[in-house]
Amino acid sequence: MIASEEGDFPPSCKTHGDFGIGTFDRLDGEMLALDGNYYQIKTDGIAYPVSGNMTTPFATVTHFEADENFRVEKPMNLTELEQYLDRNLPSENLFYAIKVDGNFTYLKARSAPKQGKPYRKLAYAVSNQTVFEFENISGTLAGFRTPDYVNGINVPGYHLHFITANRSAGGHVLELELENGTAALDTTSAFFMELPTSGNFSKVELGQDLKAEMETVEK
Amino acid sequence: MIASEEGDFPPSCKTHGDFGIGTFDRLDGEMLALDGNYYQIKTDGIAYPVSGNMTTPFATVTHFEADENFRVEKPMNLTELEQYLDRNLPSENLFYAIKVDGNFTYLKARSAPKQGKPYRKLAYAVSNQTVFEFENISGTLAGFRTPDYVNGINVPGYHLHFITANRSAGGHVLELELENGTAALDTTSAFFMELPTSGNFSKVELGQDLKAEMETVEK
Repeated sequence: MIASEEGDFPPSCKTHGDFGIGTFDRLDGEMLALDGNYYQIKTDGIAYPVSGNMTTPFATVTHFEADENFRVEKPMNLTELEQYLDRNLPSENLFYAIKVDGNFTYLKARSAPKQGKPYRKLAYAVSNQTVFEFENISGTLAGFRTPDYVNGINVPGYHLHFITANRSAGGHVLELELENGTAALDTTSAFFMELPTSGNFSKVELGQDLKAEMETVEK
Repeated sequence: MIASEEGDFPPSCKTHGDFGIGTFDRLDGEMLALDGNYYQIKTDGIAYPVSGNMTTPFATVTHFEADENFRVEKPMNLTELEQYLDRNLPSENLFYAIKVDGNFTYLKARSAPKQGKPYRKLAYAVSNQTVFEFENISGTLAGFRTPDYVNGINVPGYHLHFITANRSAGGHVLELELENGTAALDTTSAFFMELPTSGNFSKVELGQDLKAEMETVEK
């Protein structure tokens, strides 16, 4: 779901899902929703509860219901985890919400800093990100795998955020070493996109290749 | 909306809209829906009412409610009509359902022939299309303008089908000379995509650039 910059975030987003990821107005941190609780992970790495008047320019959420659960018994890094999940997908052409509860020997996450006008391209904005490293931490990965053909409307492939087991810290996942855990997949065959009808969205140039830009910034 | 190859077409499609375009199983003709009536325009150029047990692999429909109406007073061809509509769009980043009731001095349309296994790529399938030419005909254009960024999930730009005023014939529009008429735009800020959960969809390779292929076949 993509909500309006001026949209009322909690009712709209929470209506659409209890689980998901995104960002906040002016790219102010990483959004993570889990079990109906929405968190804002700012550049200090701390997960703040989302207040009632916050809004989002971009978020993807769902009502999470696990269709399949997998036990991860052996250590794997982010690439290996993605390959492991890929092997267990019913189809590469559907959407998946992914939740991994696990113990991580290492995890690197980032948060993006709040932007001001004039707004720059995402690649520039994220170049000023703050990076955090965790060691021997328990927590949850939350995110989505979207098919290649949604290139222009979402992030193709895996997009995962992390929050610690005590829900105090986290960020957008850059690297990880998962020791063991449980992966849950929610296979999703419908996609609903809600676009802003106010603000600057109507005038912004969106024709460029989002995938290419994402490949720059989502690593 | 993209419905399942095995989905039940009329309830599902008709639930989602009273207006739209698409095709039928095995690419068997052009679909056009207007005022809640669904038509199948086969390669004989004739518009047949859609029966209750037909299904569609791809259709885009909406509940049409005109937000803006324009009077077309001077003659224009398809390119000029698209440019005229472009100048009247609130934003290039939203979706538009478009209905044009008009008098056409000329209109060229096509219909695609029913395919058999093994299924070929769309460009090949449409290379065997049948083309019809109309002169001095009244009728309705129905279709959509979708933003560039939906490249992978729909046809970017304008995609229009035609049906005659007496609802007897039509097709996918290739060229036209509009003498005069009325254009209605339904500005649409939400997009719902429903993917097949059965049939061959789960295995087919969809990673290629749909826009490039569409540029080949939608001209």
